[in-house]
Amino acid sequence: MYALTPAEEIGERIARLQERMRQSGPDAAFLVQNADLFYFTGSIQQGILVVPAIGEPVYFVRRVHERAVEESPLAEIRRIAGPRDVKKYFEDKGIAFGKVGFELDVLPVGTFLRFQQVFTDSKPEDISSLVREIRAVKSPHEARVLRECGRKLAELLSSAQGDIRAGATELILQGALQGRAVAKGHTTIARMRAFNQDPGLGCVISGPDAAIPSYADFPTAGKGSSPYVPAGQGYRVIRENEPIIVDLMWAQDGYLVDMARTYSIGPMDEKMEEAYRCAVGVLRAIEAGIHPGAVAGELYREGVSAAGRTPFEANFMGPPGYNTKFIGHGVGIEVDEVPFIAKESPTALAPGMVFTLEPKFVFPGEGAVGLENTYLVTPDGFENMTVLTEEVIRCGG
Amino acid sequence: MYALTPAEEIGERIARLQERMRQSGPDAAFLVQNADLFYFTGSIQQGILVVPAIGEPVYFVRRVHERAVEESPLAEIRRIAGPRDVKKYFEDKGIAFGKVGFELDVLPVGTFLRFQQVFTDSKPEDISSLVREIRAVKSPHEARVLRECGRKLAELLSSAQGDIRAGATELILQGALQGRAVAKGHTTIARMRAFNQDPGLGCVISGPDAAIPSYADFPTAGKGSSPYVPAGQGYRVIRENEPIIVDLMWAQDGYLVDMARTYSIGPMDEKMEEAYRCAVGVLRAIEAGIHPGAVAGELYREGVSAAGRTPFEANFMGPPGYNTKFIGHGVGIEVDEVPFIAKESPTALAPGMVFTLEPKFVFPGEGAVGLENTYLVTPDGFENMTVLTEEVIRCGG
Repeated sequence: MYALTPAEEIGERIARLQERMRQSGPDAAFLVQNADLFYFTGSIQQGILVVPAIGEPVYFVRRVHERAVEESPLAEIRRIAGPRDVKKYFEDKGIAFGKVGFELDVLPVGTFLRFQQVFTDSKPEDISSLVREIRAVKSPHEARVLRECGRKLAELLSSAQGDIRAGATELILQGALQGRAVAKGHTTIARMRAFNQDPGLGCVISGPDAAIPSYADFPTAGKGSSPYVPAGQGYRVIRENEPIIVDLMWAQDGYLVDMARTYSIGPMDEKMEEAYRCAVGVLRAIEAGIHPGAVAGELYREGVSAAGRTPFEANFMGPPGYNTKFIGHGVGIEVDEVPFIAKESPTALAPGMVFTLEPKFVFPGEGAVGLENTYLVTPDGFENMTVLTEEVIRCGG
Repeated sequence: MYALTPAEEIGERIARLQERMRQSGPDAAFLVQNADLFYFTGSIQQGILVVPAIGEPVYFVRRVHERAVEESPLAEIRRIAGPRDVKKYFEDKGIAFGKVGFELDVLPVGTFLRFQQVFTDSKPEDISSLVREIRAVKSPHEARVLRECGRKLAELLSSAQGDIRAGATELILQGALQGRAVAKGHTTIARMRAFNQDPGLGCVISGPDAAIPSYADFPTAGKGSSPYVPAGQGYRVIRENEPIIVDLMWAQDGYLVDMARTYSIGPMDEKMEEAYRCAVGVLRAIEAGIHPGAVAGELYREGVSAAGRTPFEANFMGPPGYNTKFIGHGVGIEVDEVPFIAKESPTALAPGMVFTLEPKFVFPGEGAVGLENTYLVTPDGFENMTVLTEEVIRCGG
């Protein structure tokens, strides 16, 4: 059903933002990006959310004001014709802000320059780090939504066993999976902050094509179907005795999870079978370190060390020369959230953080193997939100 | 098959860009956005294409250099570790540019500031208008790719007749359509320049929910499945005797088309039937004006005039109060290209331009009707690239 964000959630999120701004600035937040609007208002509209460090937040909505009022529990939701009305609102009230935070990691230059006109005398700064830090800690409500996405994604990846057959192309397989997923509520909208990185539909990649890297900083990409989308799924025909990776997302009710499993029709060659077992070993090694207070960069190091104890170190997280410097990424409303389980990441894990781990080994000309789960940090350790067998999933043929 | 852009295409596109820059600046283009890289290099990589007004373009690629060399016919494709290598390359050659064009309509502020460091002594300007103008005129090669997308999309919308049945939800219907489309090569990647406007999967919208507008500047949106994706397709159960709009895109081999038709199970009520006939009448009226030299804003005015001659003027292109100020948009690699068939748009049509026309009438609480085609401007007039009956498509039940 069309589910709204509970009012207490919105209230708590705004309160956290304001508390942080009162500690270290800025004097107001000027939020416009869809994911941030969804988080702080509960309603994606064409509008501007101004959250002062002290005082009532105001959601200025150009369209659609009626939907904003239906969906958002914010007290102040004002209809505007354009940003000029926001300027006028604060001028009329005699309110000025010394420093205003903008989402400079995502706002295009042209768009920022237009919005900056609203507070011409204020000093603009980048509020994206603060916003991403706040969004990194999920509430029980958010964890529930993520858990449900995880359940559905695991069900989808389980059912993929029945779709995988020799002679089908990666495209046909992806079509079958996405068709079922969309019918069941997966929106396919994998919101991502990073510029130019299209997560697309995820990956359905097989045999040697799975080892082909793409422009994006992902450990596995695939050849894709054309230079326009040079990753994900392509025309390659799936064969017996080779690794097939299905790495998908499920995005529903505001949140998304990410999960991957390796499949084969008949046994893979022994090197791939062993590399897969090694990937599971690396996963176990990192999982053992997940608890509140653990530092993301140290979890990364543990993973790299564990990979170093396998015969396949050079192939960890990408083909040699294209090994990505992360083993996992935070997920939530977007697919690239804090924390990053990445080299030297200083983030200390806290209960409520949600991130993936995706240890993979990638062999050019041969194939790629590995798996991925989405984890919730709990007071005692972690909860796997994408539960499914971690053996290679054997398919009928 | 994985099709590369022909070398002569790339050569011609670079030549057009350089010719325009020699006429009116800047001295070099600094292109990084995926759609623009696809257009000017034939290969989407994490990289920077520098096109001087005079001289050889250089594609600096961080990853994946090997794929760039395979896919792009450019003579100079250089491996870099980061933007600093680009700076060094030009410094070593003693080359400096007075004005450098960046894609300021899409480059996030943070990203732009980093790239600006490559040419610290150059004056940055916005090159996006020039790039979009060049991309607006499609070559015969591009028209062929678009034509094929149009054929496949028309086939999909034709086949939707068999999917539509009372009792199915919009989500189930969209799942069936996307599943088949992805299996046949539709990538679902609807590249869009405009910030914060998610085209998603298009629309499968029915009955009164079809008349619900969303934050995006589209004439029809629908309720969607949650405030996270408040448009497109939702939980609503399709019924007999109501209008159902299927408005989808087909994105394959670098290009996308956009098309919509209205369906019903049994007759709609007479008002909807008449409004649909009026939408077709508006389409015919605008089509009559499509020829090289026609001004986009005047085509828009013709459409609005034609709508004014119907009983449904207030409901044209959106519910009253949310009527969009365009009737069509250019398509190509992206879904929001030049020309816009919009109020006061000064663009003069030229052979090779490709745009949609989507006259729709939207009645809050009742429903929405209309249709959309993608058109190619030809020397004599136009070619419809999305050919399918323009009657309401009657479905079995």
